[in-house]
Amino acid sequence: MAYFDFNGKKIYYEIHGEGRPIVLLNGIMMSTLSWKMFVESLSANNKLVLLDFFDQGQSDQYTEEPYNQDLQVKALKALLDHLNLEAPALAGISYGGNVALKFAVTYPDYIDRLLIFNASAKTGDWLKEMGQSWIMSAKDPAHFYNTTIPIIYSKMFYDGKSKWMQERKKFLVDNIFNNKVFLDGIIRLIQSADDYNIEDEMSKITAKTLIVASQYDPITPFSDQKQLHDGIKDSELVILPDCGHATMYENPVLFTTLILGFANSKFEGLKI
Amino acid sequence: MAYFDFNGKKIYYEIHGEGRPIVLLNGIMMSTLSWKMFVESLSANNKLVLLDFFDQGQSDQYTEEPYNQDLQVKALKALLDHLNLEAPALAGISYGGNVALKFAVTYPDYIDRLLIFNASAKTGDWLKEMGQSWIMSAKDPAHFYNTTIPIIYSKMFYDGKSKWMQERKKFLVDNIFNNKVFLDGIIRLIQSADDYNIEDEMSKITAKTLIVASQYDPITPFSDQKQLHDGIKDSELVILPDCGHATMYENPVLFTTLILGFANSKFEGLKI
Amino acid sequence: MAYFDFNGKKIYYEIHGEGRPIVLLNGIMMSTLSWKMFVESLSANNKLVLLDFFDQGQSDQYTEEPYNQDLQVKALKALLDHLNLEAPALAGISYGGNVALKFAVTYPDYIDRLLIFNASAKTGDWLKEMGQSWIMSAKDPAHFYNTTIPIIYSKMFYDGKSKWMQERKKFLVDNIFNNKVFLDGIIRLIQSADDYNIEDEMSKITAKTLIVASQYDPITPFSDQKQLHDGIKDSELVILPDCGHATMYENPVLFTTLILGFANSKFEGLKI
Amino acid sequence: MAYFDFNGKKIYYEIHGEGRPIVLLNGIMMSTLSWKMFVESLSANNKLVLLDFFDQGQSDQYTEEPYNQDLQVKALKALLDHLNLEAPALAGISYGGNVALKFAVTYPDYIDRLLIFNASAKTGDWLKEMGQSWIMSAKDPAHFYNTTIPIIYSKMFYDGKSKWMQERKKFLVDNIFNNKVFLDGIIRLIQSADDYNIEDEMSKITAKTLIVASQYDPITPFSDQKQLHDGIKDSELVILPDCGHATMYENPVLFTTLILGFANSKFEGLKI
Repeated sequence: MAYFDFNGKKIYYEIHGEGRPIVLLNGIMMSTLSWKMFVESLSANNKLVLLDFFDQGQSDQYTEEPYNQDLQVKALKALLDHLNLEAPALAGISYGGNVALKFAVTYPDYIDRLLIFNASAKTGDWLKEMGQSWIMSAKDPAHFYNTTIPIIYSKMFYDGKSKWMQERKKFLVDNIFNNKVFLDGIIRLIQSADDYNIEDEMSKITAKTLIVASQYDPITPFSDQKQLHDGIKDSELVILPDCGHATMYENPVLFTTLILGFANSKFEGLKI
Repeated sequence: MAYFDFNGKKIYYEIHGEGRPIVLLNGIMMSTLSWKMFVESLSANNKLVLLDFFDQGQSDQYTEEPYNQDLQVKALKALLDHLNLEAPALAGISYGGNVALKFAVTYPDYIDRLLIFNASAKTGDWLKEMGQSWIMSAKDPAHFYNTTIPIIYSKMFYDGKSKWMQERKKFLVDNIFNNKVFLDGIIRLIQSADDYNIEDEMSKITAKTLIVASQYDPITPFSDQKQLHDGIKDSELVILPDCGHATMYENPVLFTTLILGFANSKFEGLKI
Repeated sequence: MAYFDFNGKKIYYEIHGEGRPIVLLNGIMMSTLSWKMFVESLSANNKLVLLDFFDQGQSDQYTEEPYNQDLQVKALKALLDHLNLEAPALAGISYGGNVALKFAVTYPDYIDRLLIFNASAKTGDWLKEMGQSWIMSAKDPAHFYNTTIPIIYSKMFYDGKSKWMQERKKFLVDNIFNNKVFLDGIIRLIQSADDYNIEDEMSKITAKTLIVASQYDPITPFSDQKQLHDGIKDSELVILPDCGHATMYENPVLFTTLILGFANSKFEGLKI
Repeated sequence: MAYFDFNGKKIYYEIHGEGRPIVLLNGIMMSTLSWKMFVESLSANNKLVLLDFFDQGQSDQYTEEPYNQDLQVKALKALLDHLNLEAPALAGISYGGNVALKFAVTYPDYIDRLLIFNASAKTGDWLKEMGQSWIMSAKDPAHFYNTTIPIIYSKMFYDGKSKWMQERKKFLVDNIFNNKVFLDGIIRLIQSADDYNIEDEMSKITAKTLIVASQYDPITPFSDQKQLHDGIKDSELVILPDCGHATMYENPVLFTTLILGFANSKFEGLKI
């Protein structure tokens, strides 16, 4: 419900509730709107900060060069400075997980807790090619849908929520994936992740960290989460069975449980 | 820090903190003391209720017949009536998980949330024989240690916490496992679980339920947790990799995260 | 190295070696050529039968209607009748696994052993949409590559065999995925699997069956293989960790081990 | 059906069939008799060599010092020299897997293939204490049964084969576990594995190696098999779901499939 200026570009953000700050970063096709059903729960006892990255939702498009995830990290840092949050928990999923990880590597003392869902330490050749496929499909709404959605949602979710999926398909194809501004933004966002790589910097992260893996996530598979867990000193790893890449929608109850439980608990003395 | 009378026998219980009530039930070899390092975290924003079952800690021994987990359920029910808790979350690990499940099947409306760690729907032949082995080893402190502890704790935990394990071994063998009163209590507790079976009653559970499985738990393996998840309507399942049966000690941070996150979050509207 | 006529259309097939017959069915983008490196091993003590389905390799295109996997099953049945094989083991991967399963359901007594790699019991909405994405990408070689290959091969394989993957990419994009005949065939093959569904017929399978699941297979995930294992009476299930959908290339040693071990062993008396 | 003299002690061994030699090493409570139902399958096209280690079956007891698994390795080496086998495949389960691994580390060129079921690279504190529990239970047949068997067999196997388990229980308790010679042998065998450790020598193994892990094996859990796979250069790893430590009895079909498939296949050229 507010805009923040970063280098002459607008970042849209929202603040909900009061309490220990939780900053929650979007996946690539998401926006602050995507968290609608979570806002009540996540802001009941916390100051929940949501934002749209450049090229998402109500933030500005970013068409200049250079543009990679470091830019999103810098804009996020400036916003957090501006908001003057105390010891925030930083959470992110997928693209937002990368940005959160890069932020934690760059400004380790800034955050108190780090929560990573379905992210990885590097955009390798494999993921880059998958990204190319998304970009190349972006000319046609149905094509873009078929290329991205069955990779993002698990088969179990499709089968269990087939009516919702059918309605969502219609909505996305008719209203979102035919929007050139949206698609151009997605393309730039995909490209902005191409050179992401914190493989050699994970040890810089000092915040207590939670890594969440989903059993059926083909984009950031379990091995990616294991690599993060092995590389980040003070980290915990949890697995959600029968869940795909879109953890927040496939299992909103566990997503909320893990965010609030990990961001809000005192862990002092919990050590053997 | 108080005693409750049930049929002329004393149940020891403790109440810590204020807020939404969380009742946390011990595993078989535990007592209220076992939760010492968790009390601060778990009672920071909650009314934490701990208790010793009959034959545990400071509660009375129970040497009469009949005596099975239904008795523990009834005593728990009477205590909760006495405490007049509103919509408590009921959590239990192992033996305490069985009691929590049996409670939820018997008094479904009584609780608001159910949290089950490392428990099962039935004490089958396999677990009964393992229990017999524990009973038969109980005459000798070192024998009892060697028979129970490597089954309870994972190899990773032994390797990662070898100094702690060595000290604990000395403490347990010299101070606890040589205590005839303790061991006689353990024997009765094991026997009290022999006829436990809620396989055909799981559908009665109406509380929102969390099932936590540990990858390396040989006592209540993943298949047991899957069975509970399949049988309990409104349940979520999570897996802790590289963790054994003693989840609260092997991963106190995730144990606390899951308890507080699941007991305290609002889940209304979190549905697709 | 021979052609068989089925309803006026040619099916190309090869026979290598002598011994117990193993009929090995291609995945969708494969042909008899794809098995080149396996021929020596698989025919050392067996009569290995390879064939191209319609629209694959050297078999005829099939442009008439109706055309689904039942057609491939019937052509296979006619070929096997013609070859007069005794008690063959029938093996298939992916598309070929579907055909093998449908064959086993339709002619249960015809085969002695059934070996299924990375297949499923049904082409559901989820897989159909993924197939649509492949079809829509088929106009452009690089697009088709980026859409299919990172789904077929696991990230571990990409990282471990990056040089081979780069060379193969160049080869496929420059020589195969720019071939309209090939791509039109792929499109028809994808469409021919759209109505595949043996979910209610699995119990008809009487052959001793091996189901092989790969940990990182996003096309036919573990849950698919579990469903097959649960539905097929006399079946065994094995998991290949760190392996993607293209099991035969990602782990040729275990692929060969499982084919030859399961097809050739006597299992009489091996029962408890 | 013959005896071999090693340092004045007799080793009992059997040879069945003709063909590529497979030497199959017993688990700790096994003997050549334990393989009875496998002999026909495993010797159909192979020269199957079975033997009793010292303190097993019809081999001599070994009551002198020093006595550890190196002794079993040396006796095996002498027997294989005597038999003059050409390029044998060496397979072992549990205790026999340790001996096979130590053999492969000590005489890497001697064997052509190595097949390891349910073994580990080291007897750590955790396993040593479990072994102590077995030793301390060995005075009482029922106690020994209850302490060992539910750890060796999975819950699924108990549930699926309850009649067989009940009969076997009676047989073992009444005929085997009350035999002081047998139990004294088991005690010495357990102690002989106490100093086993090849953690720093795994890289010496040059034979093509198969590592088989069982999902529900609490004695040598998946992490042990992963360590072997990571440490042995030319190794493959496979997982048997729903299977316990006694892989040969819980899944005799897959056990046989993997032994024969891996020992007999040509893998030349199967490389990408």
